[in-house]
Amino acid sequence: MFKATVIIKRRPSILDPQGKAVEEGAKLLGFDNIDGTRIGKYVEFNIDAEDYDSAEKEVKEYAEKLLSNPIMEDFEFHLEEAK
Amino acid sequence: MFKATVIIKRRPSILDPQGKAVEEGAKLLGFDNIDGTRIGKYVEFNIDAEDYDSAEKEVKEYAEKLLSNPIMEDFEFHLEEAK
Repeated sequence: MFKATVIIKRRPSILDPQGKAVEEGAKLLGFDNIDGTRIGKYVEFNIDAEDYDSAEKEVKEYAEKLLSNPIMEDFEFHLEEAK
Repeated sequence: MFKATVIIKRRPSILDPQGKAVEEGAKLLGFDNIDGTRIGKYVEFNIDAEDYDSAEKEVKEYAEKLLSNPIMEDFEFHLEEAK
């Protein structure tokens, strides 16, 4: 059993209107030294695989096919063995 | 200037219907060895602060007041100096 965490971010060249909106909120609250806010997704799950390599292969496929939008997002993941 | 990343997750006791929905999708795609999918937010931004301590204090306040819902979410953050 492995525990996987995947972070999905928009590519730097793609605008992030949600991040902009949050940053506007920050300015209204007085946080005027914050910029470049970008919002992505954080996904964690357990994966029941034989070994690290097959878990890694499956996480990549899961992230590419379902979790991320390959046109505008990149993902990175971390995998660790769970007891 | 510091670069902050904040991860916001629902508390473990709070149901995550979005995670459940994604997991149903995974099953339809044939990933039937995945469970416990939970979806959170990943936020990154730059913060222009004098030193680490004041940046940390501000990131905490920003996350508590604006980025997370303190009733049902927890957050963790990482801060590093940017050149």
